[in-house]
Amino acid sequence: VTHSKADWVIGVDVGGTNLCVGLVPAPEGASERSTRFLRVRPTRPERGADAVVADLIEMAREVSAELAAGGQTPLGVGIGCPGPIDREAGLVLESPNLHWTDFPLRDRIAAELDLPTTLDNDANCATYGEWWRGAARGAASVVGVTLGTGVGGGVVIGGAVVRGASGAAGELGHTVVEIDGRACPCGSDGCLEAYVAGPAIAQRARERLEVGARSVLSASREFCAADVFRASATGDEVGREVVRGTARALGAALASVVNLLSPKVVVIVGGVAASADQLLVPVRREVERRTFRCAADACSILRGELGRAAGVVGAAGVFLDDLRNGRGRLGRSQPRGGRR
Amino acid sequence: VTHSKADWVIGVDVGGTNLCVGLVPAPEGASERSTRFLRVRPTRPERGADAVVADLIEMAREVSAELAAGGQTPLGVGIGCPGPIDREAGLVLESPNLHWTDFPLRDRIAAELDLPTTLDNDANCATYGEWWRGAARGAASVVGVTLGTGVGGGVVIGGAVVRGASGAAGELGHTVVEIDGRACPCGSDGCLEAYVAGPAIAQRARERLEVGARSVLSASREFCAADVFRASATGDEVGREVVRGTARALGAALASVVNLLSPKVVVIVGGVAASADQLLVPVRREVERRTFRCAADACSILRGELGRAAGVVGAAGVFLDDLRNGRGRLGRSQPRGGRR
Repeated sequence: VTHSKADWVIGVDVGGTNLCVGLVPAPEGASERSTRFLRVRPTRPERGADAVVADLIEMAREVSAELAAGGQTPLGVGIGCPGPIDREAGLVLESPNLHWTDFPLRDRIAAELDLPTTLDNDANCATYGEWWRGAARGAASVVGVTLGTGVGGGVVIGGAVVRGASGAAGELGHTVVEIDGRACPCGSDGCLEAYVAGPAIAQRARERLEVGARSVLSASREFCAADVFRASATGDEVGREVVRGTARALGAALASVVNLLSPKVVVIVGGVAASADQLLVPVRREVERRTFRCAADACSILRGELGRAAGVVGAAGVFLDDLRNGRGRLGRSQPRGGRR
Repeated sequence: VTHSKADWVIGVDVGGTNLCVGLVPAPEGASERSTRFLRVRPTRPERGADAVVADLIEMAREVSAELAAGGQTPLGVGIGCPGPIDREAGLVLESPNLHWTDFPLRDRIAAELDLPTTLDNDANCATYGEWWRGAARGAASVVGVTLGTGVGGGVVIGGAVVRGASGAAGELGHTVVEIDGRACPCGSDGCLEAYVAGPAIAQRARERLEVGARSVLSASREFCAADVFRASATGDEVGREVVRGTARALGAALASVVNLLSPKVVVIVGGVAASADQLLVPVRREVERRTFRCAADACSILRGELGRAAGVVGAAGVFLDDLRNGRGRLGRSQPRGGRR
């Protein structure tokens, strides 16, 4: 086996909708800031965890093969996955969107690929990615919010992911915005996620249609959050109202976070963030209205720069950070010689 | 002037209702954990800033005199004051409850006492105090909430106060709990403070009486939050309802914070916290209902141990921390020889 200088890390982002796997350059100041050979497949979690893991391994082998063609071996694998994570044990503890409980994702991947592997929450990874190589590059304090099938978040202070006592810090999607509000899959109600996750945005539009509001959207057809944003952009009243409500809920939750942490940068990433252009101005206005002026003045609210690669880049970044700090087990489950 | 070994710091806590000044032992592991010679006077902010400052200086001189009687001089003065603070400049930027704007509190005190002086937010100080010598002693991550005339908060991670980009982090009182909720003095609405500050608790009870609810409380007489808690303890329905609502709002806000930061300890301090015995159980229940289990399991919600001295102890602790780290100007505005 040739061990050439390993300059690349495999980043894996397990989303409720899509799986992304790519190669991320390890060196600081890499000219290539994002990913290479990015693979994307639908998650389809209803297939069960085994099928999802099989896809992830196949995708990782594909990108590894691209490296091998150049005579290189990846340094290791960083994985980001929704839900609270036990990083030490490499478990996904609870993931309402994937329907996984105490799932040993890290060791399943590590065993198949025979590479050092780390696991972290997907939104922590996306936030770390934007801090490491994206819109929040180098900022002293960053809060990230990921808008997608679910709503996640991450906090990076002084270049370190804030994990808290349980390791599960960063769950910004379960910030309460309305004490008696909409039921959330997590069991609470009035959570941010119950308003601004992709499915929640579509559902709120559907409820307007059901009470007879006129719209280019039709209650008899399937539509998603992106359709609602498109409708809003064309001046559709239901679309505009739902986007306005989305910005208000997101702005209220971010205001709570800005008052609490006074971050230098708030960065919005994830699938729904593709429509962030419509959200940024009203979200900023809502945050300004609800925060002390000095905290609002010190905070930039930005859209992520890395797009759908944020989670992949960040997962690789967290892997490298763990490697540097000799933190936790790196999840290699077999001796180095056991390469298949 | 005799300069004996200075083992004491003057702690100053400027509250919306009371001013507290005391001596705090500097050595780590001091057997005396709290304060000596604690002085308390009503703030009466309507008198204006000059009258408040004159009181603070008089109180500080009184406790200094006690030290001088034993041949000692204080190391310096730590001040905690509500509202966002510019620590570098020693200014109180905005304090809705005191009606101060850009007020140079640190240098006013430093000039009169001719001692190194630092200024921080009062709730940061109270949280730091409970981390340093109180209920959250040594915990890796602590969130403090101060319930009094206003509602403040502080975040201590790894023994350091989280100040954020503006220095104004920790404003937990302005966590949104209800997006279209009660108006808050800060200009936002639905803030935690608009429900659980002392005056808000009394006001919510008054509103129940005004719509005809029967109670031991009477709409025609003045009463305060403590009266509401007392009424609740005797089984009064209005009292119980308002206390229940207080616990729900506080629980919802703390749930947002526990989901975001997963602290090891949440510590409740301040005047209203004297009634925390009635709040702790329902607050814990509300937090558990609204947070991921691993974060709830890892977090203890405790009442502060230092009582009304938390702010004084913490202000002194922050002073010592700044001194140790040579951080910022310590606010001595006159040469050492200029002692009056």
